[in-house]
Amino acid sequence: MNIALSLARATLGQTSPNPSVGAVLVKDGRLVGTGVHLKAGTPHAEVHAIHSAGNDAKGAVMYVTLEPCSHYGKTAPCADLIIQTGIKKVFIATLDPNPLVSGKGIEKLIQAGIEVEVGLCEEKALQLNEKFFHFIQTNTPFVTIKAGISFDGKTATKTGDSKWITSPESRQDVHQLRHEHDGILVGINTILQDNPLLTTRRPQGGKNPIRIVLDSELKIPMSAQVIQDRSARTFIFTGKQINIERKKELEDQGITIFTQNNAQVSIKEVLTTLGELNIMSVLVEGGSEVHASFLSKNAFQQVVAYIAPKIIGGRNAIPFISGVGTELVENGMQLQFTAVDQLGSDIKITAKPLTKEEPVLCLPES
Amino acid sequence: MNIALSLARATLGQTSPNPSVGAVLVKDGRLVGTGVHLKAGTPHAEVHAIHSAGNDAKGAVMYVTLEPCSHYGKTAPCADLIIQTGIKKVFIATLDPNPLVSGKGIEKLIQAGIEVEVGLCEEKALQLNEKFFHFIQTNTPFVTIKAGISFDGKTATKTGDSKWITSPESRQDVHQLRHEHDGILVGINTILQDNPLLTTRRPQGGKNPIRIVLDSELKIPMSAQVIQDRSARTFIFTGKQINIERKKELEDQGITIFTQNNAQVSIKEVLTTLGELNIMSVLVEGGSEVHASFLSKNAFQQVVAYIAPKIIGGRNAIPFISGVGTELVENGMQLQFTAVDQLGSDIKITAKPLTKEEPVLCLPES
Repeated sequence: MNIALSLARATLGQTSPNPSVGAVLVKDGRLVGTGVHLKAGTPHAEVHAIHSAGNDAKGAVMYVTLEPCSHYGKTAPCADLIIQTGIKKVFIATLDPNPLVSGKGIEKLIQAGIEVEVGLCEEKALQLNEKFFHFIQTNTPFVTIKAGISFDGKTATKTGDSKWITSPESRQDVHQLRHEHDGILVGINTILQDNPLLTTRRPQGGKNPIRIVLDSELKIPMSAQVIQDRSARTFIFTGKQINIERKKELEDQGITIFTQNNAQVSIKEVLTTLGELNIMSVLVEGGSEVHASFLSKNAFQQVVAYIAPKIIGGRNAIPFISGVGTELVENGMQLQFTAVDQLGSDIKITAKPLTKEEPVLCLPES
Repeated sequence: MNIALSLARATLGQTSPNPSVGAVLVKDGRLVGTGVHLKAGTPHAEVHAIHSAGNDAKGAVMYVTLEPCSHYGKTAPCADLIIQTGIKKVFIATLDPNPLVSGKGIEKLIQAGIEVEVGLCEEKALQLNEKFFHFIQTNTPFVTIKAGISFDGKTATKTGDSKWITSPESRQDVHQLRHEHDGILVGINTILQDNPLLTTRRPQGGKNPIRIVLDSELKIPMSAQVIQDRSARTFIFTGKQINIERKKELEDQGITIFTQNNAQVSIKEVLTTLGELNIMSVLVEGGSEVHASFLSKNAFQQVVAYIAPKIIGGRNAIPFISGVGTELVENGMQLQFTAVDQLGSDIKITAKPLTKEEPVLCLPES
């Protein structure tokens, strides 16, 4: 199952809106087939594994990271293929999260006389596809809030300078995060201040997320890199009081504009719209007021901070999270740290909403 | 040597202005004696170890964490005792940091025909007594800047509320830090805002550091806990424009006032004064303007942040470090992270001034 999970992990970011799934076949103690789902619309992991095994598939044991499908989508049901092939036993890490189909694949296998075990490495499998699971269950994207901050919690100096707070290793990891998300979202101030490109630049290449800008008054300049650069699509969410000519001009450049019936863009509505467009995950990359909005609306599933061993100081420097803020510490938002990693000279801390009272063990760097 | 280091570590905070030193004696593969220096003015580790070994000391091998002394202080030279006892060989973790006496103890031992090896577990021994080593070499205290901060880098909300950001485990660790420092220093705003007691409260008891308040205009109220409470001494550093009657009133309460010939208290002068008083180490516990002053003057050896998985938010909340701050990120102060630990739900990060270009490996929690 660990091999199947490794295979699945290697495809993170490239299967959306499908989950990452890996499968292996074992017979007489030998690995006889492996498969991984590579892209939406192409064969599932089980199909690749069975094909790669050829005649050895019959009588083999399958390890698959997600419950095999039982319905006709873009491909035929994997459960049927498993039955036809004569697989003897199937280990499944976790059930299909869609409550409408969850358990149906297993039912089909059991009825065909195949032995089934569920739950092997379940925690890992759930974590691997957390974005997909969240999306299927809520119809809105999984939101990661990300920032590179100084040791004293600042994302920029008092003059707005932010290049570069974090180490090259951290910035490389951010490109991996971008690759693993379907969308990348920033506020208009980040565009005006930094004019970022917001594309994925990994040494081995990578998938560019859709660029999403929150710009209530449509202040974005035509010269912005996210307008001029065509290597990724750009969405802009605006409020109702905007210049219609400017909107037309942007649309002529291929930009998609979503006009909300509000003065200020509503984050909840943004997430609903993105969900309808099958955008499974969004990386929020600032600024600090946008971070505060997502946090105060409880509209996030993960916060990732890259902390550099640098002091910026200054009572007027830009903090990680701005907004109105809480008056009392006890009313602050309680999260839980779920991972701590070292990236060059920096420390990466991942936090999630608190789901249980007991503190969760931090993972030491591997 | 690891046993000797453990013994020494257990006395951290209680030997000032002496270092923490442990010694063990081994003979024929058996531990025959152990000793640790317990308090300034009492016998050194080597003496206790030799006494505990009795007749077995003759011909034994000694492991000691610091070079044995060769001069008459409050006790007789350990090197002489080692020679008289007939110790066969001495392993020494590190030399005496005082350049005037460094190597003299070893010289004496070698001249007496004793085999000597230096450098076993040297890194650990240097780190163990880093405060002492710094003090001996600079005549000013080792300064630790400490703060409990939220995940978004705040030490208090916009209203100044700060209780409690960090976990009980972190707050307990702060009392250990206090025990290990000779002085604890805060700015007057921290007194006015929080009215802290600034004593050491460990379950097993502990040594109270001397309380040091920076109060340029002598604004401290007579009702402050650091004035009323007598469980520790209190020093106040003031500028030249102060009310003499108020000074007298405070001195009548047993408070020691140091009046500098400046409008604003000079941190460099504070550290010189404290060094003259044999205060080997100072824990700086805020507020954020005081932190910024120490950092901007390069007057620190260590920064310890307890980061809680909590979001406070607010563009007007109190940051970890205030002050004027840098304009460009590249002019920020570059530190290096030297340790990462988990304390309950919090993460403790220790940083030191950057001493070499290569990033230092973070220690995983033990």
